[in-house]
Amino acid sequence: MTRRERAYALMQAGQVDLVGAFEKADSKATFQPYTWERPGGGGGTAMTLTDGGVFEKAGVNVSAVHGARVPDSLAGAHPGTEGKPFFATGISMVLHPQNPYVPAFHANYRYFEIGEEGEQNDIWWFGGGADMTPSYAFEEDIGHFHKTLKNQCERHSQADYKTMKETCDKYFYIKHRSEMRGVGGIFFDALSKPGTGDWEADLAFQKDGIETIREAYLPIIERRKNVSYGEREKEWQLYRRGRYVEFNLVYDRGTLFGLQTSGNIEAILMSLPPYAHWAFNHSPEPGSDEAKLLEVLQPRDWV
Amino acid sequence: MTRRERAYALMQAGQVDLVGAFEKADSKATFQPYTWERPGGGGGTAMTLTDGGVFEKAGVNVSAVHGARVPDSLAGAHPGTEGKPFFATGISMVLHPQNPYVPAFHANYRYFEIGEEGEQNDIWWFGGGADMTPSYAFEEDIGHFHKTLKNQCERHSQADYKTMKETCDKYFYIKHRSEMRGVGGIFFDALSKPGTGDWEADLAFQKDGIETIREAYLPIIERRKNVSYGEREKEWQLYRRGRYVEFNLVYDRGTLFGLQTSGNIEAILMSLPPYAHWAFNHSPEPGSDEAKLLEVLQPRDWV
Repeated sequence: MTRRERAYALMQAGQVDLVGAFEKADSKATFQPYTWERPGGGGGTAMTLTDGGVFEKAGVNVSAVHGARVPDSLAGAHPGTEGKPFFATGISMVLHPQNPYVPAFHANYRYFEIGEEGEQNDIWWFGGGADMTPSYAFEEDIGHFHKTLKNQCERHSQADYKTMKETCDKYFYIKHRSEMRGVGGIFFDALSKPGTGDWEADLAFQKDGIETIREAYLPIIERRKNVSYGEREKEWQLYRRGRYVEFNLVYDRGTLFGLQTSGNIEAILMSLPPYAHWAFNHSPEPGSDEAKLLEVLQPRDWV
Repeated sequence: MTRRERAYALMQAGQVDLVGAFEKADSKATFQPYTWERPGGGGGTAMTLTDGGVFEKAGVNVSAVHGARVPDSLAGAHPGTEGKPFFATGISMVLHPQNPYVPAFHANYRYFEIGEEGEQNDIWWFGGGADMTPSYAFEEDIGHFHKTLKNQCERHSQADYKTMKETCDKYFYIKHRSEMRGVGGIFFDALSKPGTGDWEADLAFQKDGIETIREAYLPIIERRKNVSYGEREKEWQLYRRGRYVEFNLVYDRGTLFGLQTSGNIEAILMSLPPYAHWAFNHSPEPGSDEAKLLEVLQPRDWV
């Protein structure tokens, strides 16, 4: 198998595995496939679940696209790639739970290759990360999440948790609200500088990243999914989801890139929550559980 | 009174008048004031209403801001204004109704002045427009709306309905969905080319525009506000409001300008709906009332 075939196979295996794990956690609804083609080359399959026992909306998308010329926005960030053929494959997922005490989760792991397939001087890199967006702050959950990701990084000599954590904090920042979208996690644009890394070692990190999602997120679901809640907590969750929408539509590079290059609109906007709420000039009562969330939306050491 | 004082007074009078008219139409809730200051100079007052009899969320904002240097984005669109002092005042409003059969409404009328106050060679212009966003298409309502705006334009020799209607159709276009946000109306970046028009005549058009909102929108509210609806229609309204959010956060120049220049975030995002819904790969059944909406979201002659 070629590198790109192996990377694509990793994403597909991850999708099968995680869809199974999320269905088991949900215990009510199942994922449905939606396959799309990219006019310029390639396509993908989004697996989506709606109105489940645990998840209100969940999606796991795998894509593999290619083209004769690197898109401008990608070439701009990676000098030396201009005008060359490209290949990109990735897995991305967003989970919006029913219960306001269960945090939303997002992860994506991706692989880029510049040049014709099989060229020995290919420029390639892996990117991605995982982050969590609670509506209520449980320091125990956030600590577990970060600790698990830190352990993942420590299993690979090329991965530095501290750097990836800081990159994540910076990336998921909603400037106009002066707060992070959630409590962060890890994020990296290129695991090794394009063309310089150990391909096998970097693939192994991506594999570990996809596999670690179970350990990082599922125990938190189990701990919170049966906590009872009322209208107040649901309203707050919907209000916080408004921030999620604001981040994704105003700042998220992947979303904007997709919209600008006429990608598959359903797969791109799969990340948006099922319901969101905006209230004028709303701020939670000082000292309330809702107000406590705002404290964890600023960068902090969690491990 | 100076020109800028007269323009500001027009916006303030419009706010008082329209808040009164919308409260009367709502017959349950009242508007509450929220006053904000702009660190760079000036400020505004947003009047907002939540969970009324007719309106789920409504806001009418008036602002008057000034500064020593024209913001870059404004100067870029108006050569010759770079580095000069500026003054801007405007009224903007967004009404999101409870009943899915009542369309949402948006309008804004604004005035820009470049240079020191009272200079005879001031560069000035008026901009704005009004547009409507139904969830269900009633051709009678859309026709009435456009006919009323056309009559408004015909009362002023410098205003061309056809041009303003086309500008509106182009502006409120959601590229990634290949559809308009709503059924349009009128929109103009500058009523007369900056510095060239008849100030009194242009002010009179703005005044007429603000006054015409009653005639254009209120009869439609009266006609539809008591039509009974169920969960299906409400879900569809919330789903359509998702498009409203997508347009405002991805494309609307006023919103993006505000976010980038650290304007008052509550006043800027006042336009967002109270609740919105996203469903994966949703499309209405062919022949349904929901599907009929999609037909009117492409440019069409309405008068």
